[in-house]
Amino acid sequence: MNLSGVFPPIATPFDADGEVDTAAIRSNVARWMRADLRGIVALGTNGEAPLLAESESDAVIAAARDAVPRDRLFLVGTGRESTRATIDASRRAAALGADAVLVRTPSFFKPRMTPEAFVAHYAAVADAVRAPVILYNYPAVTGVTFTPDAIARLAGHANIAGIKETSTDASEIAAYLDAASGHDFAVLAGSAPSFYAALCLGVRGGILAAACIVPRLCVQLFDAFNAGDHATARDLQRRLIPIASAVTTGFGVPGLKAALQLAGYVGGPPRPPLHAAPVEAVRTIEGALSSLREFL
Amino acid sequence: MNLSGVFPPIATPFDADGEVDTAAIRSNVARWMRADLRGIVALGTNGEAPLLAESESDAVIAAARDAVPRDRLFLVGTGRESTRATIDASRRAAALGADAVLVRTPSFFKPRMTPEAFVAHYAAVADAVRAPVILYNYPAVTGVTFTPDAIARLAGHANIAGIKETSTDASEIAAYLDAASGHDFAVLAGSAPSFYAALCLGVRGGILAAACIVPRLCVQLFDAFNAGDHATARDLQRRLIPIASAVTTGFGVPGLKAALQLAGYVGGPPRPPLHAAPVEAVRTIEGALSSLREFL
Amino acid sequence: MNLSGVFPPIATPFDADGEVDTAAIRSNVARWMRADLRGIVALGTNGEAPLLAESESDAVIAAARDAVPRDRLFLVGTGRESTRATIDASRRAAALGADAVLVRTPSFFKPRMTPEAFVAHYAAVADAVRAPVILYNYPAVTGVTFTPDAIARLAGHANIAGIKETSTDASEIAAYLDAASGHDFAVLAGSAPSFYAALCLGVRGGILAAACIVPRLCVQLFDAFNAGDHATARDLQRRLIPIASAVTTGFGVPGLKAALQLAGYVGGPPRPPLHAAPVEAVRTIEGALSSLREFL
Amino acid sequence: MNLSGVFPPIATPFDADGEVDTAAIRSNVARWMRADLRGIVALGTNGEAPLLAESESDAVIAAARDAVPRDRLFLVGTGRESTRATIDASRRAAALGADAVLVRTPSFFKPRMTPEAFVAHYAAVADAVRAPVILYNYPAVTGVTFTPDAIARLAGHANIAGIKETSTDASEIAAYLDAASGHDFAVLAGSAPSFYAALCLGVRGGILAAACIVPRLCVQLFDAFNAGDHATARDLQRRLIPIASAVTTGFGVPGLKAALQLAGYVGGPPRPPLHAAPVEAVRTIEGALSSLREFL
Repeated sequence: MNLSGVFPPIATPFDADGEVDTAAIRSNVARWMRADLRGIVALGTNGEAPLLAESESDAVIAAARDAVPRDRLFLVGTGRESTRATIDASRRAAALGADAVLVRTPSFFKPRMTPEAFVAHYAAVADAVRAPVILYNYPAVTGVTFTPDAIARLAGHANIAGIKETSTDASEIAAYLDAASGHDFAVLAGSAPSFYAALCLGVRGGILAAACIVPRLCVQLFDAFNAGDHATARDLQRRLIPIASAVTTGFGVPGLKAALQLAGYVGGPPRPPLHAAPVEAVRTIEGALSSLREFL
Repeated sequence: MNLSGVFPPIATPFDADGEVDTAAIRSNVARWMRADLRGIVALGTNGEAPLLAESESDAVIAAARDAVPRDRLFLVGTGRESTRATIDASRRAAALGADAVLVRTPSFFKPRMTPEAFVAHYAAVADAVRAPVILYNYPAVTGVTFTPDAIARLAGHANIAGIKETSTDASEIAAYLDAASGHDFAVLAGSAPSFYAALCLGVRGGILAAACIVPRLCVQLFDAFNAGDHATARDLQRRLIPIASAVTTGFGVPGLKAALQLAGYVGGPPRPPLHAAPVEAVRTIEGALSSLREFL
Repeated sequence: MNLSGVFPPIATPFDADGEVDTAAIRSNVARWMRADLRGIVALGTNGEAPLLAESESDAVIAAARDAVPRDRLFLVGTGRESTRATIDASRRAAALGADAVLVRTPSFFKPRMTPEAFVAHYAAVADAVRAPVILYNYPAVTGVTFTPDAIARLAGHANIAGIKETSTDASEIAAYLDAASGHDFAVLAGSAPSFYAALCLGVRGGILAAACIVPRLCVQLFDAFNAGDHATARDLQRRLIPIASAVTTGFGVPGLKAALQLAGYVGGPPRPPLHAAPVEAVRTIEGALSSLREFL
Repeated sequence: MNLSGVFPPIATPFDADGEVDTAAIRSNVARWMRADLRGIVALGTNGEAPLLAESESDAVIAAARDAVPRDRLFLVGTGRESTRATIDASRRAAALGADAVLVRTPSFFKPRMTPEAFVAHYAAVADAVRAPVILYNYPAVTGVTFTPDAIARLAGHANIAGIKETSTDASEIAAYLDAASGHDFAVLAGSAPSFYAALCLGVRGGILAAACIVPRLCVQLFDAFNAGDHATARDLQRRLIPIASAVTTGFGVPGLKAALQLAGYVGGPPRPPLHAAPVEAVRTIEGALSSLREFL
């Protein structure tokens, strides 16, 4: 599985009644597919996956699958707190057409989430599911992380394809790359503000919230880097930071949805307890987008 | 609703196939009811609630409800990440006979969990559910907390009965008590190591993991305090700390289940990614229990 | 050494040129001594000790010593990052008349501050200095803390008299008391918002920033507790919290100095990089003080 | 001032009596100067600066100055908690021949260390001292950090030359570079494990503990990067990580001193409360060094 490239972790639009809007998913995905993205990720953090019922998750997967051509990759977030629910969700996603599943670290019982617990959890999932498994590390949200040693042990599993590393810590990214060296294991950047630095370190691509809004900026950065044009890549990285920060650390999913709306996609309201981005946030996002119209 | 007293937040036993063991729930609860506990809490953190499917949650509720006499209180954890799923779970619990629902703070989207988001979330749940709602704050696990101002606003809601405050911070407990003064709103201690201190500050009772193991010790502490016998209460508190720490911060749910087994209840294995407590943990717990046989 | 009672950790006033104002120290201390305080602490955190030169520290000690009658206790903060500098400062303080020295945990090299490092550090200081040593734990500021085991080992040292525990965690306070039981070792509360809870748990007194402002409120709380009058103690605790929070977590040393000025002491400006409390802070403090005039 | 290049933040050796060993400083520095380093930093964190008396600091500066040729840069750490002590130490360092002073953020009164407080502090120091000022940010140790906005405001000061950014967060490094763009302000990497990533982002050089041990490895990495040879730079970065981690996050100053000894410098014991690295740490360091003999 060739994971090299840029993936937007797509938002889940809701209609006026708060229900999943599958038509909007299809139209949004169709538009994303006009950019040279490697594929998409459905049901990640930005897809408000923790706020969806299991049946809603299935509906999102089915709708998005429809709209992703077979030469692109369709990744689906299936992490749950229990190993058995993760396996169940992953099997359903695979049956519905996911090319790979992206499994966030369980984290509710933080002090118990030792390297051994993670290795056992991911091995069990990878053994039980036909689709390749991609680890998903998001320490700022979960409060847990992988040791490099756990990465080394999991990178050798035949059905584990890589990791989305959302931390922006260059030292940790380098440690994971080192731990996985010699294995067919792709480290993917999970944060747009450090995408270029992560590419320098050796990651193969990125799953970037900002790629929902300015996919062409992310793809051009990726292409410039691969062409050895560091000056252009660094410059594009600099231009990417304000909008990337606004739709993640700055205003979160509500910010992402407001930005989608401004960029001509269907964003819509987030699901409570999330609330729509406040007016000033929308204005900040508009400002960040104003100089990036060419990349929408 | 009189919440004064001690409640064990009961474990969820699984059978050899990893399925919910409803017979064990009934027998465990029946035994707890022989102590002078105010009631029980099902599906809290110690009940591994985040690891159960919705249908399993319902089975746990039904089994436990059967075993709790009507003159005791039967509280059920129903917190989910989305407001709508929380309402749905709370309504089902009420329909299955819960006397009140205990709703943990949503926390996945931490930076968005403002006081306003919490007030809106809990007001929506309390408006939509017939059973009284008890807030559940567990900052060490969730990474979010209530401001005293949020407590003050929620304490006045007619269908919000109180809070389980799991933090051991005397300053925060005092601030919540102060914020709620003038309202019919019960602050309950959620940590056994600070139960006596919390009683001094004015909490009405406690939901204490240690009460699963040594219910009589917790009840005697509570009674001594209420009788004005601070010396005895303080001494019982001191005796309570080692076992209380072992089954929470020390070894977590696996420790609680090992302790249950040692105390003659059905404990059984936790559900992966949790794993059984290691041998040394079991030995530590045995040590802590050896001088507490009279309180089992 | 009888440490039972209330101690204000006094501020260090500076004159218009930013120099230590020894006359103001004398007049402030003289006024504090009119309340039934057990003594004072000079050169604690609230004394801006980390901002003073060694020669200035000596001047503060000399001035304060003058103003403290011999039947009260005069404690002096002498913690430095190195063991040798701590010994040197402690010896100088003892020579200048300190009844005991209060030694904050070194913390700059956090990951190296193991229980063993602390035990060696404090034993070396206690061995080298004639005046009794009081440990000073302030985890919220230093990022390090004592394990109960370290307390147990230090509590037996003949020249270690106790600890100022600034954390408000009832569980940690209880663990320290338990670790020190059987030794002549006084645990003193270091935070006014949890003073009453800490007294319930068994601390012998308190070193409380709020006692600089409302000494009589703190002393009455202490006396009520010792008279077994929990209701009064709890009520006084509740009245104490707003001003106590304002001069510590709320507005820090600048808040304390503003409050001193409002209460009729010499407060004056803090030393840069600290800056005077902003106008709104002063207003909040005024509000908190308005109902406490009787305790000034 | 051309800060492009690699600087070791040198250790402070102590003799058998625990006194500063100025002869060892001279011989160590003379040996470092045989590598193509841009200069050295004395009295940084690795120089145990917080454990030295003011007179000892002066002795270290004088000894090191002697051994640094005039075509290299001699930087001296002079940060203190108070603005006035920082100015005083900086003036003394300048008088003793420092080419620039490196001023760590004050941090004891953390919640008061607002962007405004930092801007005022650094402007006051830069105004009062003849030598150029370099900011020094070390959030993992201090618990405080600069906002990009504070960097933007300070970067324009005529006497502020740059920043040592010790965080390994690629997003923060990028934000500082962006904030300072348009000013003559050098961002220097402060962590060897992220040196290459930081160079990609645009930093001009590095102050790296690992450069005390394997100066030629750091310099070759720097040169390869500047020659556009990313493959070599990335490979050298990978080889650098184990020893770099061992002498910082792994075993701290005791690890650095053990490594110095193994590499043929005078390391010697750290000053209490620091203690010599344990045997296993020394063995780990030996292992990390075994394949790097060519770079010593």
